[in-house]
Amino acid sequence: MANGEAKTLTANSERAPGEPAPHRAAFLRALVSLVRAEDGYGAWDSKPDAELLAPFTLTREERRAIPIIADPEPETLHRVEQYYRAVALAIEQQSGLMAVPMMHMSHEGFGRVVLMVGRLVVYSRTLRDVHRFGFDDVDTLGAEGSKTVGAALEILEQFPEVARA
Amino acid sequence: MANGEAKTLTANSERAPGEPAPHRAAFLRALVSLVRAEDGYGAWDSKPDAELLAPFTLTREERRAIPIIADPEPETLHRVEQYYRAVALAIEQQSGLMAVPMMHMSHEGFGRVVLMVGRLVVYSRTLRDVHRFGFDDVDTLGAEGSKTVGAALEILEQFPEVARA
Repeated sequence: MANGEAKTLTANSERAPGEPAPHRAAFLRALVSLVRAEDGYGAWDSKPDAELLAPFTLTREERRAIPIIADPEPETLHRVEQYYRAVALAIEQQSGLMAVPMMHMSHEGFGRVVLMVGRLVVYSRTLRDVHRFGFDDVDTLGAEGSKTVGAALEILEQFPEVARA
Repeated sequence: MANGEAKTLTANSERAPGEPAPHRAAFLRALVSLVRAEDGYGAWDSKPDAELLAPFTLTREERRAIPIIADPEPETLHRVEQYYRAVALAIEQQSGLMAVPMMHMSHEGFGRVVLMVGRLVVYSRTLRDVHRFGFDDVDTLGAEGSKTVGAALEILEQFPEVARA
């Protein structure tokens, strides 16, 4: 990542509500940076981070209203991918080692996501009902993302030689 | 795997041309068993293994004749998946540890496949021009598959504690 971009991330985090957990801020910053990276023409430059993260939040009622038949919407799948790419990016920023996410959807909102660092699988999870992917609010989004980052970093500390293999 | 199925595999391998390399026979046996597993009504029971493996072979000329634009045919993608599932199955039969393949295609025949055992990535490869997936003949198919099985088993021996994690 270029230095300039890293600076923007720091600036973004200063605007975000202060979080005590370091992974939490790192994760939300990573996610915002990935969303902003898709804004090639700068149309969202004036939008606050919270607005860009809004599509990642769904109230319980909104979630229930989404049918879980057929395949999830492409926009939903894209958000799930952004979410795990943000986890990977935060892992990379904390550890200095490149984390690679890989997601495979089978049918009807079922699938699997893994995060790999070198030869080490630092995170693996079965996805289900992806149609309803979303968090109660940005706080929960940050908390869940940072929990995943933290869990992955713990595995990384356990087998550092495999992560570098 | 049930005992009955394992016996069928052995029977199949006896019919196949004798191979000196153990991984080679194991791999081809695994691939045939996966192809036969999709034959729910027994329509292929009388077909020899070689006939079932024929779709995995393409001559150089046949390969060249396939355009590598747009996405590969679903049948082709399915064969690539079968191939790596056979590698995974052979790894499992040799090591006693479950190997999980995961394939992700992006666009235009590019993608990635990884094979995981526990927390260990035993194999990882970038796929390209998947449209033209195929081997010169069954011998080459067996040789390539067994090479992958062997390479994965070597990694497995290097980090057994990660594979069991």
